[in-house]
Amino acid sequence: MILSADNLNVVHPDIGVAVQDMDPKPIRKMVQRCCAAGAQAIDINSGPLPREAEKRFAFLVETVQAETELPLVLDTVNPDALEAGLAVCRNRSIINGFSLEPFKLERILPLAARYEVEIVGYLLDAEGRVPLDPEDLMTLAVSLMEAYHRYSLPADRLFIDPVVAPVAWEDGIRHNRAVLSVLHRLQDLLGEPVRTVAGLSNLSSGAGSIRRKIALETTFLPMLAAAGLDMVLLDVFHAQTVRNARRCELLLGQKIFSWAAIEDASPCIA
Amino acid sequence: MILSADNLNVVHPDIGVAVQDMDPKPIRKMVQRCCAAGAQAIDINSGPLPREAEKRFAFLVETVQAETELPLVLDTVNPDALEAGLAVCRNRSIINGFSLEPFKLERILPLAARYEVEIVGYLLDAEGRVPLDPEDLMTLAVSLMEAYHRYSLPADRLFIDPVVAPVAWEDGIRHNRAVLSVLHRLQDLLGEPVRTVAGLSNLSSGAGSIRRKIALETTFLPMLAAAGLDMVLLDVFHAQTVRNARRCELLLGQKIFSWAAIEDASPCIA
Repeated sequence: MILSADNLNVVHPDIGVAVQDMDPKPIRKMVQRCCAAGAQAIDINSGPLPREAEKRFAFLVETVQAETELPLVLDTVNPDALEAGLAVCRNRSIINGFSLEPFKLERILPLAARYEVEIVGYLLDAEGRVPLDPEDLMTLAVSLMEAYHRYSLPADRLFIDPVVAPVAWEDGIRHNRAVLSVLHRLQDLLGEPVRTVAGLSNLSSGAGSIRRKIALETTFLPMLAAAGLDMVLLDVFHAQTVRNARRCELLLGQKIFSWAAIEDASPCIA
Repeated sequence: MILSADNLNVVHPDIGVAVQDMDPKPIRKMVQRCCAAGAQAIDINSGPLPREAEKRFAFLVETVQAETELPLVLDTVNPDALEAGLAVCRNRSIINGFSLEPFKLERILPLAARYEVEIVGYLLDAEGRVPLDPEDLMTLAVSLMEAYHRYSLPADRLFIDPVVAPVAWEDGIRHNRAVLSVLHRLQDLLGEPVRTVAGLSNLSSGAGSIRRKIALETTFLPMLAAAGLDMVLLDVFHAQTVRNARRCELLLGQKIFSWAAIEDASPCIA
Protein backbone atom coordinates (compact mmCIF):
# COMPACT_ATOMS: atom_id res chain seq x y z
CA MET A 1 0.00 0.00 0.00
CA ILE A 2 1.58 3.27 -1.18
CA LEU A 3 1.32 6.09 1.37
CA SER A 4 0.64 9.29 -0.57
CA ALA A 5 0.85 12.52 1.45
CA ASP A 6 -2.15 14.82 1.02
CA ASN A 7 -0.43 17.60 2.98
CA LEU A 8 0.71 19.73 0.03
CA ASN A 9 -2.61 21.51 -0.45
CA VAL A 10 -3.40 25.17 -1.17
CA VAL A 11 -5.96 25.13 1.63
CA HIS A 12 -2.92 25.01 3.95
CA PRO A 13 -2.29 28.77 4.51
CA ASP A 14 1.51 28.58 4.04
CA ILE A 15 1.09 26.70 0.77
CA GLY A 16 -1.69 29.00 -0.47
CA VAL A 17 0.52 32.06 0.02
CA ALA A 18 3.55 30.28 -1.50
CA VAL A 19 1.59 29.44 -4.67
CA GLN A 20 0.27 33.00 -4.86
CA ASP A 21 3.77 34.50 -4.45
CA MET A 22 5.52 31.76 -6.49
CA ASP A 23 7.77 31.26 -3.44
CA PRO A 24 9.34 27.77 -3.50
CA LYS A 25 10.62 27.74 0.10
CA PRO A 26 7.42 26.76 2.00
CA ILE A 27 6.71 24.14 -0.67
CA ARG A 28 10.20 22.65 -0.40
CA LYS A 29 9.92 22.58 3.37
CA MET A 30 6.55 20.82 3.19
CA VAL A 31 7.92 18.19 0.79
CA GLN A 32 10.92 17.58 3.07
CA ARG A 33 8.61 17.15 6.06
CA CYS A 34 6.36 14.73 4.14
CA CYS A 35 9.36 12.63 3.06
CA ALA A 36 10.69 12.52 6.62
CA ALA A 37 7.25 11.45 7.87
CA GLY A 38 7.20 8.42 5.55
CA ALA A 39 5.46 9.63 2.38
CA GLN A 40 5.90 7.32 -0.61
CA ALA A 41 4.17 9.70 -3.05
CA ILE A 42 3.22 13.40 -2.91
CA ASP A 43 -0.23 14.65 -3.88
CA ILE A 44 -0.03 18.21 -5.27
CA ASN A 45 -3.45 19.71 -4.60
CA SER A 46 -3.53 23.16 -6.13
CA GLY A 47 -7.27 23.65 -6.09
CA PRO A 48 -8.83 25.08 -9.28
CA LEU A 49 -6.22 27.91 -9.60
CA PRO A 50 -8.34 30.81 -10.85
CA ARG A 51 -5.36 32.95 -12.06
CA GLU A 52 -2.35 31.91 -14.18
CA ALA A 53 -3.20 28.30 -13.55
CA GLU A 54 -0.73 26.76 -15.99
CA LYS A 55 2.26 28.75 -14.77
CA ARG A 56 1.46 28.09 -11.12
CA PHE A 57 0.85 24.37 -11.46
CA ALA A 58 4.05 23.92 -13.50
CA PHE A 59 5.89 25.88 -10.77
CA LEU A 60 4.45 23.52 -8.14
CA VAL A 61 5.53 20.41 -10.03
CA GLU A 62 9.02 21.81 -10.72
CA THR A 63 9.48 22.82 -7.10
CA VAL A 64 8.38 19.45 -5.72
CA GLN A 65 10.43 17.32 -8.11
CA ALA A 66 13.53 19.39 -7.32
CA GLU A 67 13.19 18.02 -3.76
CA THR A 68 12.14 14.41 -4.31
CA GLU A 69 12.06 11.57 -6.79
CA LEU A 70 8.83 10.21 -5.30
CA PRO A 71 5.81 9.73 -7.58
CA LEU A 72 3.68 12.88 -7.89
CA VAL A 73 -0.11 12.79 -7.77
CA LEU A 74 -1.28 15.77 -9.84
CA ASP A 75 -4.47 16.90 -8.18
CA THR A 76 -6.41 19.68 -9.87
CA VAL A 77 -9.71 19.88 -11.74
CA ASN A 78 -8.22 22.48 -14.09
CA PRO A 79 -7.23 20.57 -17.26
CA ASP A 80 -4.96 23.35 -18.56
CA ALA A 81 -3.06 23.46 -15.27
CA LEU A 82 -2.86 19.67 -15.25
CA GLU A 83 -1.44 19.58 -18.77
CA ALA A 84 1.16 22.21 -17.90
CA GLY A 85 2.19 20.09 -14.92
CA LEU A 86 2.37 16.88 -16.96
CA ALA A 87 4.51 18.66 -19.58
CA VAL A 88 7.24 19.45 -17.02
CA CYS A 89 6.93 16.39 -14.73
CA ARG A 90 9.92 14.02 -14.81
CA ASN A 91 8.88 11.91 -11.79
CA ARG A 92 6.37 9.08 -12.13
CA SER A 93 3.06 10.94 -12.31
CA ILE A 94 -0.54 10.04 -11.51
CA ILE A 95 -3.43 12.27 -12.60
CA ASN A 96 -6.01 12.79 -9.81
CA GLY A 97 -8.46 12.33 -11.36
CA PHE A 98 -11.42 11.75 -13.64
CA SER A 99 -14.97 10.41 -13.13
CA LEU A 100 -18.13 9.95 -15.19
CA GLU A 101 -18.79 13.69 -14.96
CA PRO A 102 -18.84 14.82 -18.64
CA PHE A 103 -16.27 17.62 -18.20
CA LYS A 104 -13.76 15.22 -16.66
CA LEU A 105 -14.34 12.54 -19.31
CA GLU A 106 -13.76 15.12 -22.03
CA ARG A 107 -10.91 17.15 -20.59
CA ILE A 108 -9.06 15.11 -17.90
CA LEU A 109 -9.13 11.48 -19.07
CA PRO A 110 -7.59 12.21 -22.52
CA LEU A 111 -4.49 13.61 -20.74
CA ALA A 112 -3.73 10.13 -19.34
CA ALA A 113 -3.57 8.86 -22.93
CA ARG A 114 -1.62 11.84 -24.29
CA TYR A 115 1.05 11.71 -21.56
CA GLU A 116 0.95 7.92 -21.02
CA VAL A 117 0.61 8.28 -17.27
CA GLU A 118 -1.45 6.67 -14.51
CA ILE A 119 -4.79 8.16 -13.53
CA VAL A 120 -7.27 7.95 -10.66
CA GLY A 121 -10.92 7.28 -11.58
CA TYR A 122 -13.56 8.20 -8.99
CA LEU A 123 -16.73 6.17 -8.48
CA LEU A 124 -18.98 9.25 -8.78
CA ASP A 125 -22.00 9.41 -11.06
CA ALA A 126 -22.34 11.86 -13.97
CA GLU A 127 -23.56 14.52 -11.52
CA GLY A 128 -20.60 13.97 -9.17
CA ARG A 129 -22.64 12.20 -6.45
CA VAL A 130 -21.56 9.19 -4.35
CA PRO A 131 -23.97 6.24 -4.31
CA LEU A 132 -24.84 4.46 -1.06
CA ASP A 133 -25.11 0.85 -2.15
CA PRO A 134 -22.38 -1.56 -3.23
CA GLU A 135 -24.32 -2.55 -6.35
CA ASP A 136 -24.51 1.07 -7.53
CA LEU A 137 -20.78 1.50 -6.90
CA MET A 138 -20.06 -1.65 -8.91
CA THR A 139 -22.20 -0.37 -11.80
CA LEU A 140 -20.23 2.88 -11.77
CA ALA A 141 -16.95 0.92 -11.78
CA VAL A 142 -18.03 -0.96 -14.91
CA SER A 143 -19.04 2.29 -16.65
CA LEU A 144 -15.78 3.95 -15.58
CA MET A 145 -13.73 1.05 -17.03
CA GLU A 146 -15.67 1.32 -20.30
CA ALA A 147 -14.93 5.05 -20.53
CA TYR A 148 -11.27 4.37 -19.68
CA HIS A 149 -10.91 1.64 -22.29
CA ARG A 150 -12.22 3.97 -25.05
CA TYR A 151 -8.70 5.41 -24.98
CA SER A 152 -7.13 1.94 -25.30
CA LEU A 153 -5.33 2.46 -22.00
CA PRO A 154 -3.97 -0.54 -20.04
CA ALA A 155 -5.99 -1.47 -16.93
CA ASP A 156 -2.89 -1.48 -14.75
CA ARG A 157 -2.46 2.28 -15.21
CA LEU A 158 -5.79 3.01 -13.51
CA PHE A 159 -6.46 3.48 -9.79
CA ILE A 160 -10.16 3.28 -8.93
CA ASP A 161 -11.20 5.48 -5.98
CA PRO A 162 -14.54 4.50 -4.38
CA VAL A 163 -14.56 7.82 -2.43
CA VAL A 164 -14.45 7.44 1.35
CA ALA A 165 -17.16 9.67 2.86
CA PRO A 166 -17.01 11.71 6.08
CA VAL A 167 -18.51 9.66 8.92
CA ALA A 168 -20.37 12.80 9.97
CA TRP A 169 -22.44 12.73 6.75
CA GLU A 170 -25.94 11.41 7.28
CA ASP A 171 -25.19 8.31 5.19
CA GLY A 172 -21.40 8.41 5.47
CA ILE A 173 -21.01 5.19 7.43
CA ARG A 174 -23.40 3.30 5.16
CA HIS A 175 -21.50 4.52 2.12
CA ASN A 176 -18.15 3.55 3.65
CA ARG A 177 -19.40 0.01 4.28
CA ALA A 178 -20.21 -0.11 0.55
CA VAL A 179 -16.66 1.15 -0.16
CA LEU A 180 -15.17 -1.82 1.74
CA SER A 181 -17.45 -4.25 -0.06
CA VAL A 182 -16.53 -2.86 -3.48
CA LEU A 183 -12.78 -2.90 -2.76
CA HIS A 184 -13.07 -6.60 -1.92
CA ARG A 185 -15.00 -7.48 -5.07
CA LEU A 186 -13.61 -5.11 -7.69
CA GLN A 187 -10.88 -7.32 -9.16
CA ASP A 188 -13.25 -10.27 -9.49
CA LEU A 189 -16.00 -8.16 -11.02
CA LEU A 190 -13.84 -6.35 -13.56
CA GLY A 191 -11.58 -9.31 -14.30
CA GLU A 192 -8.68 -6.89 -14.84
CA PRO A 193 -5.64 -5.96 -12.75
CA VAL A 194 -7.01 -2.54 -11.77
CA ARG A 195 -5.66 -1.01 -8.58
CA THR A 196 -7.48 1.01 -5.93
CA VAL A 197 -6.90 4.20 -3.96
CA ALA A 198 -8.79 5.96 -1.17
CA GLY A 199 -8.54 9.34 0.55
CA LEU A 200 -8.43 8.68 4.29
CA SER A 201 -8.58 12.31 5.46
CA ASN A 202 -12.16 12.63 4.17
CA LEU A 203 -13.27 10.14 6.81
CA SER A 204 -12.78 12.53 9.71
CA SER A 205 -13.76 15.72 7.93
CA GLY A 206 -15.46 17.90 10.53
CA ALA A 207 -14.00 15.92 13.43
CA GLY A 208 -12.27 18.96 14.86
CA SER A 209 -9.64 17.43 17.11
CA ILE A 210 -6.65 15.46 15.85
CA ARG A 211 -7.48 12.94 18.58
CA ARG A 212 -10.78 12.07 16.92
CA LYS A 213 -9.24 12.08 13.45
CA ILE A 214 -6.52 9.58 14.39
CA ALA A 215 -9.01 7.40 16.29
CA LEU A 216 -11.10 7.09 13.12
CA GLU A 217 -8.18 6.74 10.71
CA THR A 218 -6.40 3.98 12.63
CA THR A 219 -9.65 2.00 12.85
CA PHE A 220 -10.72 2.32 9.21
CA LEU A 221 -7.29 2.01 7.55
CA PRO A 222 -6.79 -1.68 8.54
CA MET A 223 -10.23 -2.41 7.06
CA LEU A 224 -9.26 -0.69 3.78
CA ALA A 225 -5.87 -2.43 3.74
CA ALA A 226 -7.41 -5.87 4.33
CA ALA A 227 -9.84 -5.15 1.48
CA GLY A 228 -6.80 -4.88 -0.80
CA LEU A 229 -6.28 -1.12 -1.10
CA ASP A 230 -3.18 -0.29 -3.19
CA MET A 231 -2.69 3.39 -2.35
CA VAL A 232 -3.94 5.67 0.41
CA LEU A 233 -3.94 9.47 0.45
CA LEU A 234 -3.44 10.59 4.03
CA ASP A 235 -2.08 13.25 6.33
CA VAL A 236 1.42 11.83 6.87
CA PHE A 237 1.90 14.10 9.89
CA HIS A 238 -0.52 11.80 11.74
CA ALA A 239 2.36 9.63 12.94
CA GLN A 240 0.07 7.06 14.59
CA THR A 241 -1.79 6.55 11.32
CA VAL A 242 1.49 6.08 9.42
CA ARG A 243 2.66 3.49 11.98
CA ASN A 244 -0.74 1.81 11.74
CA ALA A 245 -0.31 1.60 7.94
CA ARG A 246 3.09 -0.07 8.40
CA ARG A 247 1.60 -2.64 10.77
CA CYS A 248 -1.12 -3.34 8.18
CA GLU A 249 1.59 -4.04 5.62
CA LEU A 250 3.30 -6.37 8.05
CA LEU A 251 0.13 -8.34 8.82
CA LEU A 252 -1.02 -8.53 5.19
CA GLY A 253 2.27 -8.72 3.32
CA GLN A 254 4.81 -11.31 2.36
CA LYS A 255 7.69 -10.02 4.47
CA ILE A 256 9.38 -12.09 7.14
CA PHE A 257 7.94 -11.13 10.50
CA SER A 258 10.18 -9.45 13.03
CA TRP A 259 9.39 -7.94 16.41
CA ALA A 260 11.62 -5.00 15.49
CA ALA A 261 9.09 -3.92 12.86
CA ILE A 262 6.30 -3.99 15.44
CA GLU A 263 8.40 -2.07 17.95
CA ASP A 264 9.00 0.60 15.36
CA ALA A 265 5.28 0.69 14.75
CA SER A 266 4.08 0.91 18.32
CA PRO A 267 1.39 3.33 19.41
CA CYS A 268 1.61 5.04 22.76
CA ILE A 269 -0.20 3.48 25.68
CA ALA A 270 -2.99 5.41 27.39
CA MET B 1 -19.24 -8.11 17.86
CA ILE B 2 -19.42 -9.57 21.38
CA LEU B 3 -16.35 -8.79 23.51
CA SER B 4 -15.59 -11.90 25.56
CA ALA B 5 -12.97 -11.46 28.29
CA ASP B 6 -10.23 -14.10 28.25
CA ASN B 7 -8.81 -12.83 31.55
CA LEU B 8 -10.32 -15.45 33.86
CA ASN B 9 -7.67 -18.08 33.20
CA VAL B 10 -5.87 -20.46 35.58
CA VAL B 11 -2.54 -19.45 34.05
CA HIS B 12 -3.09 -16.14 35.88
CA PRO B 13 -1.39 -16.89 39.25
CA ASP B 14 -4.18 -15.38 41.42
CA ILE B 15 -6.80 -17.42 39.61
CA GLY B 16 -4.72 -20.60 39.68
CA VAL B 17 -4.36 -20.36 43.47
CA ALA B 18 -8.05 -19.46 43.89
CA VAL B 19 -9.13 -22.57 41.95
CA GLN B 20 -6.74 -24.72 43.97
CA ASP B 21 -8.00 -23.33 47.30
CA MET B 22 -11.67 -23.05 46.16
CA ASP B 23 -11.46 -19.39 47.21
CA PRO B 24 -14.14 -17.32 45.42
CA LYS B 25 -12.73 -13.86 46.28
CA PRO B 26 -10.02 -13.48 43.58
CA ILE B 27 -12.45 -14.90 41.01
CA ARG B 28 -15.20 -12.45 41.98
CA LYS B 29 -12.74 -9.59 41.85
CA MET B 30 -11.56 -10.62 38.38
CA VAL B 31 -15.14 -10.85 37.09
CA GLN B 32 -15.92 -7.39 38.50
CA ARG B 33 -12.85 -5.95 36.81
CA CYS B 34 -13.75 -7.59 33.48
CA CYS B 35 -17.30 -6.20 33.63
CA ALA B 36 -16.00 -2.71 34.45
CA ALA B 37 -13.57 -2.94 31.51
CA GLY B 38 -16.39 -3.61 29.04
CA ALA B 39 -16.65 -7.42 28.86
CA GLN B 40 -19.88 -8.66 27.26
CA ALA B 41 -19.14 -12.34 28.01
CA ILE B 42 -16.70 -14.12 30.34
CA ASP B 43 -14.54 -17.00 29.20
CA ILE B 44 -13.82 -19.41 32.09
CA ASN B 45 -10.54 -21.07 31.19
CA SER B 46 -9.77 -23.67 33.81
CA GLY B 47 -7.15 -25.60 31.88
CA PRO B 48 -7.47 -29.43 32.01
CA LEU B 49 -7.97 -29.55 35.83
CA PRO B 50 -6.05 -32.70 36.80
CA ARG B 51 -7.65 -33.07 40.28
CA GLU B 52 -11.33 -32.89 41.28
CA ALA B 53 -12.11 -31.39 37.90
CA GLU B 54 -15.91 -31.55 38.17
CA LYS B 55 -16.10 -29.96 41.59
CA ARG B 56 -13.65 -27.20 40.67
CA PHE B 57 -15.26 -26.29 37.34
CA ALA B 58 -18.73 -26.20 38.92
CA PHE B 59 -17.27 -23.96 41.65
CA LEU B 60 -15.88 -21.63 38.97
CA VAL B 61 -19.21 -21.40 37.13
CA GLU B 62 -21.17 -20.84 40.37
CA THR B 63 -18.75 -18.16 41.53
CA VAL B 64 -18.83 -16.27 38.21
CA GLN B 65 -22.59 -16.38 37.76
CA ALA B 66 -23.08 -15.08 41.30
CA GLU B 67 -21.33 -11.90 40.10
CA THR B 68 -22.72 -11.40 36.60
CA GLU B 69 -25.55 -12.29 34.24
CA LEU B 70 -23.23 -12.12 31.21
CA PRO B 71 -22.95 -15.16 28.94
CA LEU B 72 -20.30 -17.63 30.10
CA VAL B 73 -17.88 -19.29 27.71
CA LEU B 74 -17.00 -22.65 29.29
CA ASP B 75 -13.42 -23.29 28.27
CA THR B 76 -11.92 -26.64 29.21
CA VAL B 77 -10.87 -29.74 27.31
CA ASN B 78 -12.03 -31.90 30.22
CA PRO B 79 -15.50 -33.21 29.26
CA ASP B 80 -16.41 -34.24 32.82
CA ALA B 81 -15.55 -30.80 34.15
CA LEU B 82 -17.46 -29.21 31.28
CA GLU B 83 -20.55 -31.26 32.00
CA ALA B 84 -20.42 -30.39 35.70
CA GLY B 85 -20.24 -26.71 34.71
CA LEU B 86 -23.13 -26.99 32.27
CA ALA B 87 -25.23 -28.73 34.91
CA VAL B 88 -25.01 -25.73 37.26
CA CYS B 89 -24.87 -22.88 34.72
CA ARG B 90 -27.93 -20.60 34.70
CA ASN B 91 -26.43 -17.89 32.45
CA ARG B 92 -26.39 -18.24 28.68
CA SER B 93 -23.53 -20.66 28.09
CA ILE B 94 -21.21 -21.36 25.19
CA ILE B 95 -18.99 -24.46 25.14
CA ASN B 96 -15.41 -23.70 24.05
CA GLY B 97 -15.05 -25.91 22.14
CA PHE B 98 -14.82 -28.87 19.80
CA SER B 99 -12.90 -29.62 16.59
CA LEU B 100 -12.39 -32.57 14.23
CA GLU B 101 -10.05 -34.17 16.80
CA PRO B 102 -11.75 -37.53 17.59
CA PHE B 103 -11.79 -37.07 21.38
CA LYS B 104 -13.57 -33.71 21.04
CA LEU B 105 -16.08 -35.03 18.52
CA GLU B 106 -16.90 -37.91 20.84
CA ARG B 107 -16.84 -36.22 24.22
CA ILE B 108 -17.33 -32.44 23.81
CA LEU B 109 -19.73 -31.97 20.88
CA PRO B 110 -22.48 -34.24 22.33
CA LEU B 111 -22.67 -31.94 25.37
CA ALA B 112 -23.96 -29.10 23.13
CA ALA B 113 -26.85 -31.36 22.16
CA ARG B 114 -27.50 -32.68 25.65
CA TYR B 115 -27.57 -29.23 27.28
CA GLU B 116 -28.99 -27.37 24.24
CA VAL B 117 -26.29 -24.70 24.40
CA GLU B 118 -24.08 -22.87 21.92
CA ILE B 119 -20.65 -24.22 21.04
CA VAL B 120 -17.42 -23.08 19.43
CA GLY B 121 -16.00 -25.27 16.64
CA TYR B 122 -12.30 -24.84 15.81
CA LEU B 123 -10.96 -25.14 12.27
CA LEU B 124 -8.28 -27.65 13.29
CA ASP B 125 -7.70 -30.93 11.52
CA ALA B 126 -8.10 -34.36 13.17
CA GLU B 127 -4.56 -34.03 14.57
CA GLY B 128 -5.25 -30.56 15.99
CA ARG B 129 -3.15 -28.69 13.43
CA VAL B 130 -3.97 -25.34 11.77
CA PRO B 131 -3.80 -25.31 7.96
CA LEU B 132 -2.10 -22.45 6.11
CA ASP B 133 -4.30 -22.04 3.05
CA PRO B 134 -7.82 -20.66 2.81
CA GLU B 135 -9.00 -23.64 0.78
CA ASP B 136 -7.87 -26.07 3.48
CA LEU B 137 -9.64 -24.00 6.13
CA MET B 138 -12.82 -23.99 4.04
CA THR B 139 -12.64 -27.78 3.66
CA LEU B 140 -12.32 -28.11 7.45
CA ALA B 141 -15.32 -25.80 7.91
CA VAL B 142 -17.46 -28.04 5.69
CA SER B 143 -16.35 -31.17 7.59
CA LEU B 144 -16.97 -29.44 10.93
CA MET B 145 -20.52 -28.48 9.88
CA GLU B 146 -21.17 -32.07 8.82
CA ALA B 147 -20.02 -33.37 12.21
CA TYR B 148 -22.13 -30.70 13.95
CA HIS B 149 -25.26 -31.52 11.96
CA ARG B 150 -25.01 -35.21 12.90
CA TYR B 151 -26.51 -34.08 16.22
CA SER B 152 -29.36 -32.22 14.44
CA LEU B 153 -28.21 -28.98 16.04
CA PRO B 154 -29.30 -25.62 14.57
CA ALA B 155 -26.54 -23.75 12.66
CA ASP B 156 -27.18 -20.56 14.59
CA ARG B 157 -25.94 -22.18 17.81
CA LEU B 158 -22.46 -22.71 16.38
CA PHE B 159 -19.53 -20.26 16.41
CA ILE B 160 -16.74 -21.26 14.02
CA ASP B 161 -13.24 -20.28 15.17
CA PRO B 162 -10.62 -20.21 12.39
CA VAL B 163 -7.84 -19.98 15.02
CA VAL B 164 -5.75 -16.80 14.87
CA ALA B 165 -2.06 -17.76 15.01
CA PRO B 166 0.79 -15.95 16.76
CA VAL B 167 2.50 -13.62 14.29
CA ALA B 168 5.82 -14.90 15.64
CA TRP B 169 5.11 -18.39 14.26
CA GLU B 170 7.01 -19.11 11.08
CA ASP B 171 3.80 -19.18 9.04
CA GLY B 172 1.61 -17.22 11.45
CA ILE B 173 1.04 -14.22 9.20
CA ARG B 174 0.26 -16.42 6.20
CA HIS B 175 -2.24 -18.41 8.26
CA ASN B 176 -3.86 -15.23 9.59
CA ARG B 177 -4.37 -13.94 6.04
CA ALA B 178 -6.20 -17.21 5.36
CA VAL B 179 -8.27 -16.59 8.52
CA LEU B 180 -9.47 -13.23 7.14
CA SER B 181 -10.28 -14.77 3.79
CA VAL B 182 -12.29 -17.59 5.38
CA LEU B 183 -14.23 -15.23 7.66
CA HIS B 184 -15.30 -13.25 4.57
CA ARG B 185 -16.43 -16.30 2.63
CA LEU B 186 -17.80 -18.64 5.31
CA GLN B 187 -21.47 -17.64 5.21
CA ASP B 188 -21.56 -17.88 1.41
CA LEU B 189 -19.77 -21.22 1.35
CA LEU B 190 -21.83 -22.90 4.05
CA GLY B 191 -25.12 -21.25 3.09
CA GLU B 192 -26.13 -21.25 6.76
CA PRO B 193 -26.32 -18.53 9.43
CA VAL B 194 -23.24 -19.73 11.28
CA ARG B 195 -21.41 -17.17 13.40
CA THR B 196 -17.67 -16.72 13.92
CA VAL B 197 -15.33 -16.15 16.85
CA ALA B 198 -11.59 -15.52 17.13
CA GLY B 199 -9.07 -15.37 19.97
CA LEU B 200 -7.18 -12.09 19.61
CA SER B 201 -4.65 -12.67 22.40
CA ASN B 202 -3.03 -15.50 20.43
CA LEU B 203 -1.88 -12.98 17.84
CA SER B 204 0.73 -11.39 20.08
CA SER B 205 1.78 -14.51 21.97
CA GLY B 206 5.48 -14.08 22.71
CA ALA B 207 5.40 -10.34 22.12
CA GLY B 208 6.59 -9.56 25.61
CA SER B 209 5.60 -5.95 26.07
CA ILE B 210 1.99 -4.78 26.32
CA ARG B 211 2.98 -2.04 23.90
CA ARG B 212 3.64 -4.57 21.15
CA LYS B 213 0.55 -6.58 22.01
CA ILE B 214 -1.77 -3.58 21.72
CA ALA B 215 -0.07 -2.41 18.52
CA LEU B 216 -0.83 -5.78 16.91
CA GLU B 217 -4.31 -6.17 18.37
CA THR B 218 -5.58 -2.74 17.31
CA THR B 219 -4.33 -3.33 13.78
CA PHE B 220 -5.73 -6.84 13.30
CA LEU B 221 -9.06 -6.41 15.12
CA PRO B 222 -10.52 -3.96 12.54
CA MET B 223 -9.59 -6.47 9.83
CA LEU B 224 -11.41 -9.26 11.70
CA ALA B 225 -14.40 -7.00 12.40
CA ALA B 226 -14.69 -5.92 8.75
CA ALA B 227 -14.56 -9.60 7.77
CA GLY B 228 -17.75 -10.06 9.80
CA LEU B 229 -16.48 -11.53 13.08
CA ASP B 230 -19.34 -12.03 15.60
CA MET B 231 -17.39 -12.56 18.83
CA VAL B 232 -13.82 -11.86 19.92
CA LEU B 233 -12.00 -13.31 22.91
CA LEU B 234 -9.59 -10.68 24.17
CA ASP B 235 -7.78 -9.26 27.17
CA VAL B 236 -10.33 -6.63 28.19
CA PHE B 237 -7.71 -4.91 30.35
CA HIS B 238 -6.14 -3.69 27.10
CA ALA B 239 -8.25 -0.53 27.17
CA GLN B 240 -7.02 0.69 23.79
CA THR B 241 -8.09 -2.58 22.17
CA VAL B 242 -11.55 -2.35 23.76
CA ARG B 243 -11.94 1.23 22.49
CA ASN B 244 -10.75 0.09 19.08
CA ALA B 245 -13.44 -2.63 19.09
CA ARG B 246 -16.09 -0.02 19.86
CA ARG B 247 -14.94 2.15 16.98
CA CYS B 248 -15.11 -0.90 14.70
CA GLU B 249 -18.74 -1.36 15.75
CA LEU B 250 -19.43 2.29 15.02
CA LEU B 251 -17.90 2.16 11.53
CA LEU B 252 -19.48 -1.17 10.59
CA GLY B 253 -22.80 -1.01 12.42
CA GLN B 254 -26.22 0.45 11.89
CA LYS B 255 -26.15 2.95 14.74
CA ILE B 256 -26.58 6.68 14.19
CA PHE B 257 -23.14 8.26 14.14
CA SER B 258 -22.18 10.67 16.90
CA TRP B 259 -18.89 12.35 17.68
CA ALA B 260 -19.49 11.55 21.34
CA ALA B 261 -19.02 7.86 20.58
CA ILE B 262 -15.69 8.59 18.89
CA GLU B 263 -14.57 10.82 21.75
CA ASP B 264 -15.28 8.00 24.15
CA ALA B 265 -13.26 5.75 21.92
CA SER B 266 -10.19 7.93 21.45
CA PRO B 267 -6.69 6.55 21.72
CA CYS B 268 -3.99 8.63 23.30
CA ILE B 269 -1.79 10.66 21.00
CA ALA B 270 1.96 10.04 20.92
